[in-house]
Amino acid sequence: MGQLRKDPITGRWIIIAPEEDRDPCKFIVRKHTKKGGTCPFCEGHENMTPPEIFAFRKNGTTANTPGWQVRVVSNKFPALRIEGGLDKQGIGIYDLMNGIGAHEVIIETPDHYKEICDLDSAHIELVIKAYYQRYVDLQGDSRFKYIIIFRNYGLDAGASLEHPHSQLIALPVVPKRVKEELKGAKQYFDYRGRCVFCDIIAQELEEKKRIVTENESFLAFNPFTPRFPFETWIMPREHCSDFGHYAQSKDKKSVRELAKILKEVLLRIKLTLGDPSYNFILHSSPLRQKEMEDYHWHIEIMPRLMGIAGFEWGSGFYINPTAPEKAAECLRDVKI
Amino acid sequence: MGQLRKDPITGRWIIIAPEEDRDPCKFIVRKHTKKGGTCPFCEGHENMTPPEIFAFRKNGTTANTPGWQVRVVSNKFPALRIEGGLDKQGIGIYDLMNGIGAHEVIIETPDHYKEICDLDSAHIELVIKAYYQRYVDLQGDSRFKYIIIFRNYGLDAGASLEHPHSQLIALPVVPKRVKEELKGAKQYFDYRGRCVFCDIIAQELEEKKRIVTENESFLAFNPFTPRFPFETWIMPREHCSDFGHYAQSKDKKSVRELAKILKEVLLRIKLTLGDPSYNFILHSSPLRQKEMEDYHWHIEIMPRLMGIAGFEWGSGFYINPTAPEKAAECLRDVKI
Repeated sequence: MGQLRKDPITGRWIIIAPEEDRDPCKFIVRKHTKKGGTCPFCEGHENMTPPEIFAFRKNGTTANTPGWQVRVVSNKFPALRIEGGLDKQGIGIYDLMNGIGAHEVIIETPDHYKEICDLDSAHIELVIKAYYQRYVDLQGDSRFKYIIIFRNYGLDAGASLEHPHSQLIALPVVPKRVKEELKGAKQYFDYRGRCVFCDIIAQELEEKKRIVTENESFLAFNPFTPRFPFETWIMPREHCSDFGHYAQSKDKKSVRELAKILKEVLLRIKLTLGDPSYNFILHSSPLRQKEMEDYHWHIEIMPRLMGIAGFEWGSGFYINPTAPEKAAECLRDVKI
Repeated sequence: MGQLRKDPITGRWIIIAPEEDRDPCKFIVRKHTKKGGTCPFCEGHENMTPPEIFAFRKNGTTANTPGWQVRVVSNKFPALRIEGGLDKQGIGIYDLMNGIGAHEVIIETPDHYKEICDLDSAHIELVIKAYYQRYVDLQGDSRFKYIIIFRNYGLDAGASLEHPHSQLIALPVVPKRVKEELKGAKQYFDYRGRCVFCDIIAQELEEKKRIVTENESFLAFNPFTPRFPFETWIMPREHCSDFGHYAQSKDKKSVRELAKILKEVLLRIKLTLGDPSYNFILHSSPLRQKEMEDYHWHIEIMPRLMGIAGFEWGSGFYINPTAPEKAAECLRDVKI
């Protein structure tokens, strides 16, 4: 029999409905055959993108020329634009404002064919540091309330360009799903006096059933209430609500350990499931908040193995055929 | 410049980010070529499904044999099962219960190749009446708190069987997204003393820009804050919170008009966009509630023209390239 499970953060219910006689790691995965060709994100094509905002590059090389390791540019087709005022207004019962924000692309490597799990972890550290640099810079703009950093890999995850890249969007409002997460975490804290994320870490370490891997600074596990098969979260052991604070205050070791665990988890997902599409999203607190005792930044990785049907949209209720205990076992057991 | 728009019901923000030089009706749509073959939902194959729960059938024909127009059976691979107790329990900070519920399939026609927009509206009336019959019957089971009726059409909408069918799931909890909708509608009512849905109808009728079609009992329009291109809602003009109450209390004409407008809207979507996948979902109040003055049942239709990427999952923020004013214009103008 399946199970209904309630997410302790948001209150969302999900259904774990294992299909009997089904190999839990077998999903139909579309092949990612990179076509190559003329790519605006490849080295030597710097003039095909909007101007460079930030880069890690070899000494002596200049902006918008080859010689970079990680390069950040504006999205050529931005969902939001950086110039202008918000001009908030109402039309009858409806509220709207101008589409002001920032939409940037973090090109993770000059190499078209190397995904994060193929890069060495020193290089992934540079990617994380680029996230941090842009995060800190954009939070200086008082029009912005929230920054979301995310990565879409593969067609089923909505990636439109095949060159390895992440994206950053700075928003003039705190998005609804973030508000829900903050609210749930606050309710938990008000009731129990503890951070729900810290409690999750403690219980996962005790039960051990859903842990994928861990190191001194981070824990990677399949949450008790995964919306999707093989959904995996990476969470810092130490309480910290803001990714910006964390990356700033910690020694180099913590960033190195984040790079290492991110590489390892993505590699385990790739090898277990046959290189599926995935999204990952960095969840952090709203901008310019003091450290919050009830929120805990983390990364959520969602392999895109199944479509989302009407039931999920209508209800916010997710049906997942793979128990996270089983998924974690597969991810732990795969040879890397 | 794009626009940020706030949904007056849930408070969700969406981005309307029109791409210049783009035909608003041109999306890449996967062809729905039905393969036919041995289909468990076709007439004559009644023994391939679980036993019939309900059917409209010709006089003199017996259950689980040919002669039906609309047929309801249990889902052969149910997400939830009807037998057993809920057995609610906690494991540390986590909550869970048995996967108890009902998961039924409404087979809409014996004809494998006729979709809703191809059926005559008298037949669609039977489909709606079958929804109602199952709705009323299942709400007698006190374990269930909510019933969701939905339809997945096409591969991109998560349909796994090509024979025309809808689904019904009865749940032992009210899903989160429904709770949010109820809560937003209640907040609006508490503040303004009016139903937000009734206010939306009034404003849409006044502005006229987002209306697709209407008849005496129903209005079909593209909402001010569509999550997806060409998202279309069908709403009864008259205030009523519960689909079950509505279908029971109204004269035959209202059900006929619902059948007619559903057919017309689905036909307009098909002809405008080239037969895209879609989901539709019937939104109604929780079971066994008295009529609520702050909620209004309706149907939400979501063509599946684009994938959902990481940003949407992480933020609950949707980026939509097609303004609903433009979408409504296309849907109105198409020749049917």
